[in-house]
Amino acid sequence: MNLLEATINKIEPQRAEVRALARARLEQLTMPYWALGRLMDLAEDLAGITGSLNPPVSRKTIVTMAGDHGVVAAGVSKYPQEVTVQMVHNFVRGGAGINALARLVNARVVVVDMGVAGDLSELVKGGRILSRRVAGGTKNMVEEPAMTRDEAIRCVEGGMEIALELDSSTDLFGTGDMGIGNTTPSSAIVSIFSGSPVAEVTGRGTGIDDGQFFHKIAMIEKAIAVNRPDPEDALDVLAKVGGFEIGGIAGLILGAASVKKPVLVDGFISTAGALIAAHLSPLSKQYMIASHRSMEQGHRIALDSLGKTPLLDLDLRLGEGTGAALSMHLAEAAVRILTDVATFEQAAVSRAD
Amino acid sequence: MNLLEATINKIEPQRAEVRALARARLEQLTMPYWALGRLMDLAEDLAGITGSLNPPVSRKTIVTMAGDHGVVAAGVSKYPQEVTVQMVHNFVRGGAGINALARLVNARVVVVDMGVAGDLSELVKGGRILSRRVAGGTKNMVEEPAMTRDEAIRCVEGGMEIALELDSSTDLFGTGDMGIGNTTPSSAIVSIFSGSPVAEVTGRGTGIDDGQFFHKIAMIEKAIAVNRPDPEDALDVLAKVGGFEIGGIAGLILGAASVKKPVLVDGFISTAGALIAAHLSPLSKQYMIASHRSMEQGHRIALDSLGKTPLLDLDLRLGEGTGAALSMHLAEAAVRILTDVATFEQAAVSRAD
Repeated sequence: MNLLEATINKIEPQRAEVRALARARLEQLTMPYWALGRLMDLAEDLAGITGSLNPPVSRKTIVTMAGDHGVVAAGVSKYPQEVTVQMVHNFVRGGAGINALARLVNARVVVVDMGVAGDLSELVKGGRILSRRVAGGTKNMVEEPAMTRDEAIRCVEGGMEIALELDSSTDLFGTGDMGIGNTTPSSAIVSIFSGSPVAEVTGRGTGIDDGQFFHKIAMIEKAIAVNRPDPEDALDVLAKVGGFEIGGIAGLILGAASVKKPVLVDGFISTAGALIAAHLSPLSKQYMIASHRSMEQGHRIALDSLGKTPLLDLDLRLGEGTGAALSMHLAEAAVRILTDVATFEQAAVSRAD
Repeated sequence: MNLLEATINKIEPQRAEVRALARARLEQLTMPYWALGRLMDLAEDLAGITGSLNPPVSRKTIVTMAGDHGVVAAGVSKYPQEVTVQMVHNFVRGGAGINALARLVNARVVVVDMGVAGDLSELVKGGRILSRRVAGGTKNMVEEPAMTRDEAIRCVEGGMEIALELDSSTDLFGTGDMGIGNTTPSSAIVSIFSGSPVAEVTGRGTGIDDGQFFHKIAMIEKAIAVNRPDPEDALDVLAKVGGFEIGGIAGLILGAASVKKPVLVDGFISTAGALIAAHLSPLSKQYMIASHRSMEQGHRIALDSLGKTPLLDLDLRLGEGTGAALSMHLAEAAVRILTDVATFEQAAVSRAD
């Protein structure tokens, strides 16, 4: 049995009895019933995921997966491909959006080369980034499959390995992505799994104009027509219209779920990865927390397809893990509600009639 | 000139030139244009409010104003009036929801007796709470004005005094409330200022059933019919259908605005206070940040009437300042985006075509 199958087999449901104990305590707190709403839902979820009434969330790791995309040759992005590698250097120097937000919430950022179109070996040797590099970018999915089925398995397993490697130093995972052109495969994946037309799940990415937008939709439709991915086979979808970092994110989520760690799923690209994970293992959804709804118009449909309601809705469209980083504070808040608020009995406060 | 007029006269617009400088920097950051959306709007706002490109937000104070309401005699709430005083004791002991969330974000909670129906003098003497006590609860607004015009001025001025007293130790204010029955005057205030029917801005408060809900609407309609508050005169609205803690919140906001400090406005009751403040001084709106949208159904209309879009939407309905506390993290995040992210030039990242 390979790592992919072994990891999926290891994923168990949340601990129902710990969820019930958490709920019982939350219902006794000195406030009207469930008056902290979604934070209390989240507290119950964290208890079920971790099996603890004081769910550990202090050691936070955001894994930012980088990969390049052959489909940029089809003119789907406004930025040149070299920006993927440039941004990895920016992450390492601490100058990107994710660095600023991770520092605020005291999270570590782990950057992984899943397959960029450039040489990052010095950063890997220096221990500044990790590598599960599959190839120097995917193929152009408008003409052929983005990757082979074997490569698809390798990038998912790479993500699993990262999760298992970081497990001993991590309580709470966040996903993140970097890859010029990666809203294009993400829209394809969301279209296939949700059954929604490509035009409804395709957005402006980094900010393309109307002409480029209609071209992008046409390219995604062509990629699906050319490759005919099987919606019942998540690895086939990933191979034909996916990306290495998207597969890595799917693997990270599955790996985290296999060791009962909560994962904050970032934006549109991460949700595409989460859909791959969910189709490989429906149980893994119990370990996913949707951090935010992005500006990218397909994200709402992607989240509905995943069956998740996001915590934040702040018109973000950056990726990198920025939404996951922001929502880590809410996970900490949820734990504090569960552990630090007095019950009616403790505080001698009168109950409702 | 009294304190109320003097404070209002002191409120100036945001610093437009500092807003422009902040925007110019945010537009150069290594990310697609405005890719952190509402956080970048917030960063621009904080720069304009504080007049700084590194807006100070580290010293955080949540002011939780407590008051009681004669209208509980009309059967509008599910909880007995004694809970207001009991919850003040819970705040002082650190056992309430606001204490747990304030500790997480490293904010101080300052509790103010604006006029509860009970004796808190020991806590005041011991320095555990502040007092700007107007009376032992308002009158029953279904039968007569909740307070006199003089009392309305006193509670607004009390809130102003608190803001000015805390100014030297506070960078970022949050509002909060405690008062059994206080969604009732808040709905009345929102109905009057928004022009919306009472039924559309009245909610379930702490969780009343259908019968109590229709009764609550009828009581609010009666209070407005009996007292005929003048929508053009915010002090008249506050006096006739308001509450001492609501006036205190209005005063706190106006005081903070007069010293150019940002104020995170909590939920429905705080937004009613913010509407009083906005009608006394439209300029004060430039210093208000809407922290969240609560479950209370009138809150959406209240926020629209105030012209504000909230940061969070987490089905909270607790008050106390809990939404303000949660959103303080977003204010810190906004500042980090403004100060800690590299520009394209600094990071040598290629720009869009």
